[in-house]
Amino acid sequence: MSYLSIDIAEQPHALNRLLNEERANITLIAQQIRERQPRYVVLAARGSSDNAARYSQYLFGTRNHLSAALATPSIFTLYQQPPDLKDALVVAISQSGQSPDIVSVIAEGRRQGALTVALTNDSDSPLALAAEHTVYLHAGPEKSIAATKTYTTSLTALAMLCAAIAQDDDAFEQLTHVPAWIEQIVRDGDHTIRAAERYAYIDYCVVASRGYNYATAYEVALKLKEMAYIIADPYSSADFQHGPIALVEHGFPVIAILPDGALQPELVTFFNNLRERGADIVLIASQNESFAQTPLLIPSGIPEWLSPIVAVVQGQLFALGVTLAKRFDPDSPRGLRKVTLTK
Amino acid sequence: MSYLSIDIAEQPHALNRLLNEERANITLIAQQIRERQPRYVVLAARGSSDNAARYSQYLFGTRNHLSAALATPSIFTLYQQPPDLKDALVVAISQSGQSPDIVSVIAEGRRQGALTVALTNDSDSPLALAAEHTVYLHAGPEKSIAATKTYTTSLTALAMLCAAIAQDDDAFEQLTHVPAWIEQIVRDGDHTIRAAERYAYIDYCVVASRGYNYATAYEVALKLKEMAYIIADPYSSADFQHGPIALVEHGFPVIAILPDGALQPELVTFFNNLRERGADIVLIASQNESFAQTPLLIPSGIPEWLSPIVAVVQGQLFALGVTLAKRFDPDSPRGLRKVTLTK
Repeated sequence: MSYLSIDIAEQPHALNRLLNEERANITLIAQQIRERQPRYVVLAARGSSDNAARYSQYLFGTRNHLSAALATPSIFTLYQQPPDLKDALVVAISQSGQSPDIVSVIAEGRRQGALTVALTNDSDSPLALAAEHTVYLHAGPEKSIAATKTYTTSLTALAMLCAAIAQDDDAFEQLTHVPAWIEQIVRDGDHTIRAAERYAYIDYCVVASRGYNYATAYEVALKLKEMAYIIADPYSSADFQHGPIALVEHGFPVIAILPDGALQPELVTFFNNLRERGADIVLIASQNESFAQTPLLIPSGIPEWLSPIVAVVQGQLFALGVTLAKRFDPDSPRGLRKVTLTK
Repeated sequence: MSYLSIDIAEQPHALNRLLNEERANITLIAQQIRERQPRYVVLAARGSSDNAARYSQYLFGTRNHLSAALATPSIFTLYQQPPDLKDALVVAISQSGQSPDIVSVIAEGRRQGALTVALTNDSDSPLALAAEHTVYLHAGPEKSIAATKTYTTSLTALAMLCAAIAQDDDAFEQLTHVPAWIEQIVRDGDHTIRAAERYAYIDYCVVASRGYNYATAYEVALKLKEMAYIIADPYSSADFQHGPIALVEHGFPVIAILPDGALQPELVTFFNNLRERGADIVLIASQNESFAQTPLLIPSGIPEWLSPIVAVVQGQLFALGVTLAKRFDPDSPRGLRKVTLTK
């Protein structure tokens, strides 16, 4: 077994550790956030963590009524013209806690007196030391280079933080089901890996969703790029219609993420439209749809706000399957190391 | 001549109209913004306009010390859980002013008492009517489906707005040179169109830059997707190193945007690294570099903050050249209309 498959399979346990061991700390941090009443959120992250940040834009927006901006770290580092952060909640996400540009955003926020929170899998990292508050991911050592369990623990930690800010106990109750939903997908993982064989020869694809699962589209695309060297372009269904839809012709591969919930009718119309243009659609959803060539199922009844934590696991398995089908080694992506330092 | 080439060539005139006719209005709007002291900016846009919004994140950040968030319109429309916008400056950008999701963000901002500004090429559009303040782009009718002059006028209007908020007359003086810089590129446009022949057979590429020109990478990628059906993936050089760099192997096409200024040393190192991995590099810069296969020059001495308005014109011409080399019609992208309505 590859390190990657082991990390994927470990996710339910990692999430249970996080849910059990970090709730008290997150509740304390949330209490301070409520007292300080930040006016908006600034998020600093790279790679998979940046996709977790994208998920949290929807969490902070819909659950806490806070606008959330993805930070542009070069403003802090290379241009050295940081924005005024006094009224911001500054959140950084980094499994290693090492990248200097991400540490810079937190350090500047703290210097200006903003509330700063780091989410990291290394509680002794420079990022953890720079932030006022640290949420520890409890993912355990991640041996594969491509992030999987540090991604789903980051999403879960962000969901816990937003639930705690909203003092929403029902949300915490919903969160306790996530590990079992993921377990179900992992147990059936060989099916996904076999289904991916059909896509052994694709060089490019689009990964599409919207809302909460916009983040899932980005993360699945990143897995396909870094392990299977597929040019995978992530898109919101709305943005895709403003130009890139021109790409789609017969056989064009699209990975479609269709959560249960508010976006379902609009996304079904969109994916049907792509099918009519000839797209070959890999569908991640709780039930099969007529437009799907290759359905990859997730449990039904998952609240939409938690679906990105579960749906991405099918995407991880699909990316692993395509990587194996292309005869690449999922544990040795070309030219990548576990920790990347950027200014 | 295609409508697209006519629109590209018209840009210096459109920018001169905007600079001459809109400064007084923009100065008045900026005065109100200074008085209201918004704590952050929320930007709503789709397609090319979203890339203009991306540019303005750097403008608002470095020149006005304001964090700027790209709005997630589905929070307003499909989830119907809009964030608290009281302390925000809400800016929407749309050439047509028609898309309901973008109008929704402005309408909600206004309902909550936030300062709202619309940038549009149609001053009678629903967006213009919904916003408290409207900046008119003066681009004239854009006949091609792919946006060119509405993009550069949007960037310029945003640059004018940020300069006016900062009460920076030097910045306005610098802006007056932009039309002549673009004129220089347009006059030499046939050279770029010929140089693009080499790329007639590419199916995918990466477009990379960072900072202010991160927006240029997105916009050039969008032109390549919608007209030449190339899967063009835009990246910041920093994000690219956190995973996607695994894609690069011998002959991998990269379009590199290298502005003069603060980012130059870091970007030169990055592009040299890609060249060593075998990338075939199309370089948009003020001088040739040893790593470039195909240099496309822009005038030297352009202040970095204005370089996106100029550099993108080489990207437009390159996309036109590849489209013609592939024998597609730049005026009839598959399945696109000039106005796209999304919820």
